Amino acid sequence: MTVRVPVERLHTSNGAIMRTRRPDVLAVEEPLEIRAAGQVITVTMRTPGADLDLVHGYLLAEGIIDAADQVRGARYCAGAVATGPEGVEQNTYNVLDVDLLDPARVPTGVSRVTMSTSACGVCGSASIDAISARVPTHLGRGEVRVAADVVLTLAGALRERQSVFEKTGGLHAAAVADVTGHIHTHAEDVGRHNAVDKTIGAALRAGSLPREDAILVVTSRASFEIVQKAAMAGIAIVATVSAPSSLAVETAATLGMTLIAFARGDRCNVYSGFERVTD
Amino acid sequence: MTVRVPVERLHTSNGAIMRTRRPDVLAVEEPLEIRAAGQVITVTMRTPGADLDLVHGYLLAEGIIDAADQVRGARYCAGAVATGPEGVEQNTYNVLDVDLLDPARVPTGVSRVTMSTSACGVCGSASIDAISARVPTHLGRGEVRVAADVVLTLAGALRERQSVFEKTGGLHAAAVADVTGHIHTHAEDVGRHNAVDKTIGAALRAGSLPREDAILVVTSRASFEIVQKAAMAGIAIVATVSAPSSLAVETAATLGMTLIAFARGDRCNVYSGFERVTD
Repeated sequence: MTVRVPVERLHTSNGAIMRTRRPDVLAVEEPLEIRAAGQVITVTMRTPGADLDLVHGYLLAEGIIDAADQVRGARYCAGAVATGPEGVEQNTYNVLDVDLLDPARVPTGVSRVTMSTSACGVCGSASIDAISARVPTHLGRGEVRVAADVVLTLAGALRERQSVFEKTGGLHAAAVADVTGHIHTHAEDVGRHNAVDKTIGAALRAGSLPREDAILVVTSRASFEIVQKAAMAGIAIVATVSAPSSLAVETAATLGMTLIAFARGDRCNVYSGFERVTD
Repeated sequence: MTVRVPVERLHTSNGAIMRTRRPDVLAVEEPLEIRAAGQVITVTMRTPGADLDLVHGYLLAEGIIDAADQVRGARYCAGAVATGPEGVEQNTYNVLDVDLLDPARVPTGVSRVTMSTSACGVCGSASIDAISARVPTHLGRGEVRVAADVVLTLAGALRERQSVFEKTGGLHAAAVADVTGHIHTHAEDVGRHNAVDKTIGAALRAGSLPREDAILVVTSRASFEIVQKAAMAGIAIVATVSAPSSLAVETAATLGMTLIAFARGDRCNVYSGFERVTD
């Protein structure tokens, strides 16, 4: 997940510029092309590793699968080769072909859930409408409760599971937890949406999802897309360390979800679904 | 660009959970659908405002235009209505139809530059190859120099131009500067790629681009996509406050660009194109 590269470090000292050269560690970013029956579904720039989890999470978020067993198999495309050292062709492991139980669920043309709305009426409300018809029925029921002191532990629990490198800020992290504070799965990626797809995909494959008391925890901003991914996975509670967007709050409120942001140890803000957070 | 919403603030005090309700200010996120001659090119989730800048920057990054005058006009789709209060239909201002000088440059099917590579060989190198054939020829020439002390002022200069709200962390910012440290254009958005498209689009429209001594400054992580957008705009120097990805560094090095990261007042790291940064 990381690579060492040379770096020249500059800093000012008594008005003079000092330079030192030494290796630095960076998060790896490589494209992943996801195909079904040879047709390209998407290309995402991701950190390699946990690709199968990523694919499961992505397909669930896009409404192409509802359960892990609807992916019958997946293999890296044997023809996906790049010419490596000394002219030897190497599999890039960047093209994953998925064998779906129901390939007809792959949308043709524009594929995002948010883009499948009526042609000319694109707006936040239409984006919410497009997913609200497709989310699991238990989502807005609201019987689930989580204690505030559990909410306040979630960011720290995710952070403990991040490696030292990731704590330096090069990778986003996401986890599927439950209302007892237990972390079921966690994942890291250069892309915040990929980190969410990976952890939701891992939970789906492990049987940790669906569960009504699940919580999606993320280190990144909560945008519409993050709330959408939680909703499509039937997760009613989203907690982020960072800020939410207006549409993330509107989506969570419309779907009956609880959205918690700025969750940082001793405090947090609840933007919707207040009743789920108890003392 | 912002909206007020109710929020319940929770914090711990002597082991007890304290709650206060008050309004909070959030960054607005809404979809923008970009069309050319009625055909959907892309849908992006963006902060409304500077949409024309965003469109110019996006089209430049995707290789659909090279100059501002190749966009002959743009108008919000009159049919893009949502039903507002009391059942009155309102234009959502979320669908922008662009009149291009050369509509044939709009790719059919999968549209991203990175996806136009050979079918099965998708990898970081292929992604770089795909853009390297299309970037302006001066990019890697390398005559341009920037003094280290100017580099160290860029993050602060961008930060000064961010509003108080944006400094709280809800929005990404980006600017087009030059090697004297002058900021030509700056922009903010919930999406880091949108902030870059907006500021590059604004610079293109204002005649501040192309210029060989331009610098793209961003507050967000430098991923492949950010370096790609700079390259397609002919900007040879990219400086970010945050971390770069492996592919961002590889792309910058291959294209002869200078990539500076962790630029924070008294220090920065240079990952490629070291010779451009002088004492």
